[in-house]
Amino acid sequence: MSEHSEKTTQRTIRNIAVTLSYVGTNYHGWQIQKNAISVQEVFQKALYKILNESVDIKGCSRTDTGVHANMYVVNFKTTSKIHFNNLICALNRHLPDDISAYECTEKTLDFHSRYSCKGKEYIYKVWNNKVKNPFLSGRALHYWYPLDIYQMKKSSECFIGTHDFTAFATIDKRAMKNMQRTVRKFEVEKEGDNVNFIVEADGFLYNMVRIMVGTLLRVSQKKLSPADIPKIIESKDRSCAGPTAPPQGLYLNRVFY
Amino acid sequence: MSEHSEKTTQRTIRNIAVTLSYVGTNYHGWQIQKNAISVQEVFQKALYKILNESVDIKGCSRTDTGVHANMYVVNFKTTSKIHFNNLICALNRHLPDDISAYECTEKTLDFHSRYSCKGKEYIYKVWNNKVKNPFLSGRALHYWYPLDIYQMKKSSECFIGTHDFTAFATIDKRAMKNMQRTVRKFEVEKEGDNVNFIVEADGFLYNMVRIMVGTLLRVSQKKLSPADIPKIIESKDRSCAGPTAPPQGLYLNRVFY
Repeated sequence: MSEHSEKTTQRTIRNIAVTLSYVGTNYHGWQIQKNAISVQEVFQKALYKILNESVDIKGCSRTDTGVHANMYVVNFKTTSKIHFNNLICALNRHLPDDISAYECTEKTLDFHSRYSCKGKEYIYKVWNNKVKNPFLSGRALHYWYPLDIYQMKKSSECFIGTHDFTAFATIDKRAMKNMQRTVRKFEVEKEGDNVNFIVEADGFLYNMVRIMVGTLLRVSQKKLSPADIPKIIESKDRSCAGPTAPPQGLYLNRVFY
Repeated sequence: MSEHSEKTTQRTIRNIAVTLSYVGTNYHGWQIQKNAISVQEVFQKALYKILNESVDIKGCSRTDTGVHANMYVVNFKTTSKIHFNNLICALNRHLPDDISAYECTEKTLDFHSRYSCKGKEYIYKVWNNKVKNPFLSGRALHYWYPLDIYQMKKSSECFIGTHDFTAFATIDKRAMKNMQRTVRKFEVEKEGDNVNFIVEADGFLYNMVRIMVGTLLRVSQKKLSPADIPKIIESKDRSCAGPTAPPQGLYLNRVFY
């Protein structure tokens, strides 16, 4: 290999995607911000120690404070030639116990973890028992009263399809033009005292899953009925929907490309 | 009711058993000690706030630092007439998120949560994957290398029955006279990347489960074979057994009376 081609190789830019999982309890969400620790900041510092260069890290979603991720994809461009296995090992050495890096792949240069995303799946976990579960503290919503799974299932079916979900979104500083999203799946599962809401869509508005879950809890409380859900969607009025369920039950579960 | 009989009723002593569960990560075990926070201390303070009296609390076991409990039974004697439901609710209000009280019953006066115990079941949890699981940090042993479930199962069967388990005990300051215990069940279960060791016995020596698990891991590493287990038991020599597996994988799962 000539000196020239070697230099060319060294300068080759790679677009690297890393898949993380993290417990969100100790973080103010993904995004870097002043005066609060975020997953992005911690990840960026770990990556800097390994690559010895500052790279621009793109995350697949802006998760909120206390929200968890079973699968979170980031990408960044680097000229580093580090082997993927070594990168994963080094990341896990430098990341704290509540953040893990478990996959690393090379993508085409136009890949963007957020904009290339074709859909996401969230799980919202509820611990449904009078007594709190210490192992689920910060990891599920503790809900005392018996849940009406049948009525919630019936209601959840009304979310499926393409709708304007304005009624199920917190008004965001970043004005969103298109409030239409396609919900592909909405399951309500009960296993013992654990109740899981599993939602897949092509994309989500701000707080959309948490407001949908908060609304289903209202149905369980008989303050709303399944027949109200299409009317609430139709209203495009946030005040018609239920409250935003708290963050600790929410897990970004899958990201589709 | 006469004034006399009312006073008699007030002075009636009740022996109350409370079942707890707790995440042991933030505690130096059950037992009260100087300069370190224990589950007993936290429970005692919560109880004092409710009953307004100092009671002598007996715990069913001395769990170590970082060990968890899905079921932990305590008992104490009190003249308080508090209703059990109210006691549970008040305890859960006063206890931190990582300790929960979920059952309360009245026992005969001779009941002692430790000495009346007829047996216990422990679970030791292992996360068996190259990559750490952030959700199991402090809640399972992270074991990188593939585990040989078949050889560990075969070895674990040798523990079943009545044996002198001196080789599987850390020498205790409190000299134990009888080192014989009866192991009733020893299961090794694999579910995905989770491997659980489930052990039931009439009683356990100090660190017994953790040393048995540490020894099974040695079998998986081919440093010991199933045929070695009876020899190690026979030796009554701690140095023949494997290392003590770390505490974070251990859960007191059931207590039998």
